[in-house]
Amino acid sequence: MKSYNSLSKDDLLKEKESLSAAYAALKAKGFSLNMARGKPGKDQLDLSMPMLDVLNSKSDLTAEGNVDCRNYGELTGIMDAKKLFAEYLGVATDEIIVVGSTSLTFMNDCVARAMLAGVLGSEKPWLKEEKVKFLCPVPGYDRHFSICQFLGIEMINIPTSTEGPDMDMVEKLVSQDPLIKGMWIVPKFSNPLGITYSDKTIKRLAALKPAAKDFRIFCDNAYAMHQVYEDVPLLNPLTACKEAGNPNMIYIFGSTNKITFPGAGVGFFAASKENVAFTEKQLSMQAISWDKINMLRHVKFLKSVSGIYDQMKKHADILRPKFDAVIKKLETELSGLDAGEWVKPNGGYFITFIARQGCAKRIVSLCKDAGVIMTNAGATHPYQNDPEDRYIRIAPSFPSHKELAEAMEVFCAAAKLATVEKALG
Amino acid sequence: MKSYNSLSKDDLLKEKESLSAAYAALKAKGFSLNMARGKPGKDQLDLSMPMLDVLNSKSDLTAEGNVDCRNYGELTGIMDAKKLFAEYLGVATDEIIVVGSTSLTFMNDCVARAMLAGVLGSEKPWLKEEKVKFLCPVPGYDRHFSICQFLGIEMINIPTSTEGPDMDMVEKLVSQDPLIKGMWIVPKFSNPLGITYSDKTIKRLAALKPAAKDFRIFCDNAYAMHQVYEDVPLLNPLTACKEAGNPNMIYIFGSTNKITFPGAGVGFFAASKENVAFTEKQLSMQAISWDKINMLRHVKFLKSVSGIYDQMKKHADILRPKFDAVIKKLETELSGLDAGEWVKPNGGYFITFIARQGCAKRIVSLCKDAGVIMTNAGATHPYQNDPEDRYIRIAPSFPSHKELAEAMEVFCAAAKLATVEKALG
Repeated sequence: MKSYNSLSKDDLLKEKESLSAAYAALKAKGFSLNMARGKPGKDQLDLSMPMLDVLNSKSDLTAEGNVDCRNYGELTGIMDAKKLFAEYLGVATDEIIVVGSTSLTFMNDCVARAMLAGVLGSEKPWLKEEKVKFLCPVPGYDRHFSICQFLGIEMINIPTSTEGPDMDMVEKLVSQDPLIKGMWIVPKFSNPLGITYSDKTIKRLAALKPAAKDFRIFCDNAYAMHQVYEDVPLLNPLTACKEAGNPNMIYIFGSTNKITFPGAGVGFFAASKENVAFTEKQLSMQAISWDKINMLRHVKFLKSVSGIYDQMKKHADILRPKFDAVIKKLETELSGLDAGEWVKPNGGYFITFIARQGCAKRIVSLCKDAGVIMTNAGATHPYQNDPEDRYIRIAPSFPSHKELAEAMEVFCAAAKLATVEKALG
Repeated sequence: MKSYNSLSKDDLLKEKESLSAAYAALKAKGFSLNMARGKPGKDQLDLSMPMLDVLNSKSDLTAEGNVDCRNYGELTGIMDAKKLFAEYLGVATDEIIVVGSTSLTFMNDCVARAMLAGVLGSEKPWLKEEKVKFLCPVPGYDRHFSICQFLGIEMINIPTSTEGPDMDMVEKLVSQDPLIKGMWIVPKFSNPLGITYSDKTIKRLAALKPAAKDFRIFCDNAYAMHQVYEDVPLLNPLTACKEAGNPNMIYIFGSTNKITFPGAGVGFFAASKENVAFTEKQLSMQAISWDKINMLRHVKFLKSVSGIYDQMKKHADILRPKFDAVIKKLETELSGLDAGEWVKPNGGYFITFIARQGCAKRIVSLCKDAGVIMTNAGATHPYQNDPEDRYIRIAPSFPSHKELAEAMEVFCAAAKLATVEKALG
C-alpha cells in the first residue's frame, strides 16, 4: 500500500472519505468489546481448575517444618512455597518472602513503607525528604505510576529501546540527584512493549552509583516465564546487583497471577538477605501471616519449576493465536501506510501500537465510539501523559477470537482514519 | 485461704520458702509450653476442613452479577460475600468492602493511607500534621499499638472498666486536641479483657465531638459472634454513629480468622457509604482485586449468618472447657490470697490476669524460666509499657487440655511467688 505520507491533499481527502465510511459501517454494527486489561481468557483460567482439587477436607495441611498452614504463623511464607518460587526467580530461600494474593499490593506496600519509615540504610523516611523522585521507563505499566502519583512521588520519563531503558540517561540522573530514590522496571517481556532487557542493560542497572544511598530498583518480574513465541533469557538481576557490589539495591516482585488465577494467586518478593530480614521486621508490624493454605495449594498443583514451565506452555498455546491475529491484522491493514508501528513481542501480555505523533488519543476515542474499549492513550506514561500521544497498549488475551477480530477491524480502521485526519491537519 | 496482705514478715518468709520449693519442683519438670498467642487449637481448625470441599475443579466459580471469581476485578469484593458479612456486621452491602485474608493488614493499611493521604474530609495527609495522636483503651491489643508505634503515632492510654473506656476522659481529650486523629476500640469481647462495651459507652463514642474533623474510631470487631459463655449484645456502632450525626467517624474491621482459618480467612471493612466510596478510590491505586475464590469458598461453606452462628457454637464448645479450666485453677489457687484478680469473660479469646502492682513482669519471667511462654507483660499497653506492671493476657485456646493444666499450675505458682516476693519488698 502507498504511504499516507506520499499522498496529495486531494488524495488524502478522498482517502478520509472512504475511511470514514468504512469506520461508520463498523460503528453501525454496535460492538461492545473490551481490549483494555491484561486479563487471561476463560480457557486460560480453566487450565488451573485442577488446583481446586489438590486440597480437600482429608488433606494434610502441614508444610515443611511441621507448620500447620491452617493457623497463624510464618510471616515470610511456608518453606515449600519459598523453595518453589525462589527457584522460579533464581534466588535463595532466604532471599524471598511469599505473601498475599497479588504482587501489586505488595509493591504499593513496599513503596508506602519506604515513604513512612525508609528502607534499609535510609537516614529517614522518604517522605521527610524535600521531594522523592522515581525514574519511570516509558512506555510502562500504569499501575506502577498510579502508586507513585498517589504517594506524591515525582516521576521522570526514561525512553526505552529494544535493549531496555536509556541507560546513559539513567546513570546520569541517578548519580546526580539524591532525591531519586527509586526506579520501576519490568525487565522481561515488559509491560507493554514486550521487550526483554539486554544483559548489558541489566549489568549497567546493577552497577549504578546512586547519589541516594537508599536508592531501590523496583523490579516487577511479572512475566518471568511468560513467553508466547520464543524465550528470551533475562540476566538474573539480583545476581547482577550482587556481582556489582550493590546487593541491596534491588527489590524483585513476582506472582502466580498470570500462572494460575489473577487475584487469587500467590505473590512474592525477592531481595538480598539483608533486605529480606529488614522487610520481615517491618512487616511484623502490619501482619501476622498470609494465606498459607493457598501457598500449599499452589505448591501441590505446580509441583516444581518445570511444572510452572509446563503450565506456561499451555498458556502460550492459547495466547499465541491471539497475538498472531493482532499482528497479522496490523500487518495486513497498516503495513507501508506510515500509519503507526508495532512491536512484535516474544512474550508477556501486550502488543504495543506506536501511532503517528498526536494520534493515539484520537484512535482510542474512535475505538470507544465504535464500542471497542482500549486502554486509555496516555496510560503507558506517568501522569497519564504521553507527551507525543503515540502509545496504545493492545491486550489480546481476554476477548474471544471472534471478538478480537472485530476489535482489531475497528482498531485498524480507527488508526487509519486518525492518521489521515492528522495528515490533513 | 489467707490473704498475703494479712501475713507477718515471718509468715511471708516461710510462705516464700514453700512457694519457691513448689516452683522449683515445677521448673524441674522441664515444660515447654506456649500460652502467648490467641491461636485456635487443632480441633477448632478441624471444624473448617469441610470448607476445602465446597469448591473443586468442577465448580462454577461465578459470583453474583456474572463475576468470574477466577479473574481480576471487583475491587470491593464479590456481592455474595458482601451480603453475608454485611449482615454479620449489621451494615448494608454498600457499607462494606471485603478484602484479603486478614483484617489486621487492612487496619494497618487504613492507618498508613490516612498518614500518607488523609481520610475523607482531611485537609492534608495526617503526617503533615505537627503530630498525630491516637487514644488507646488499656489493656488492649498489642498489634494495634505496634501499628501506631511503627508509624510514629503518639499513643495515649485510656483506662477501661467493664463498661468500656473511660468516656469522660475520651470526650475531654478528643474535643480539646485536634491532633487526636484516631482511637482504637475492640468493643465486643475485647482483647484482652473480654468485656463488651455498654450501650451507653457506644452512644457516647458515637456522639463524640472531635476537635479534629477527620477523627476516626478504628473499631476492631474481631469477636462479633465469639461468645464462649453467654452472648452480650453490642449496640451497632455504625448505626449509633449515624444516629448521632457522625456517620463518617467510624471504621469497622472484622474477619473470619477466628471463624474459619487464621491467616487464610476473609477480612472486611465496614463504614458509611461515603467512607467506603472514598476508600475504594484510594484502594484502586494499590490493588486490582483480592482473592475472590476464597470469598466464594467462605460463602459456600458458611452459607448464612445463622451458619456462622452454628460454626461459632462449635468453637465455643471447644473453647469453654479451656476457659473453665483456667478460671477454675485461678479460683482454686489464688482466691482470697490478694495475689491478683482476673476477669471472667463471656467470649473472645483471652482471660486477663491483673497482678498485684509491680508483679506482672516477674510472673511472666518466672513462667518463662519454668518453660511456659506467656504474652509479654506490658504487651497489653502502648510502647509495651504497663505503668503499673499488672496486666497479663492468658490465651487458653491453643494448648491441649493437659498442656493448659500444666501451664496454669506453673502460672499460679509464679503468681503466688511473685506476690510474696513483692510483699517482702
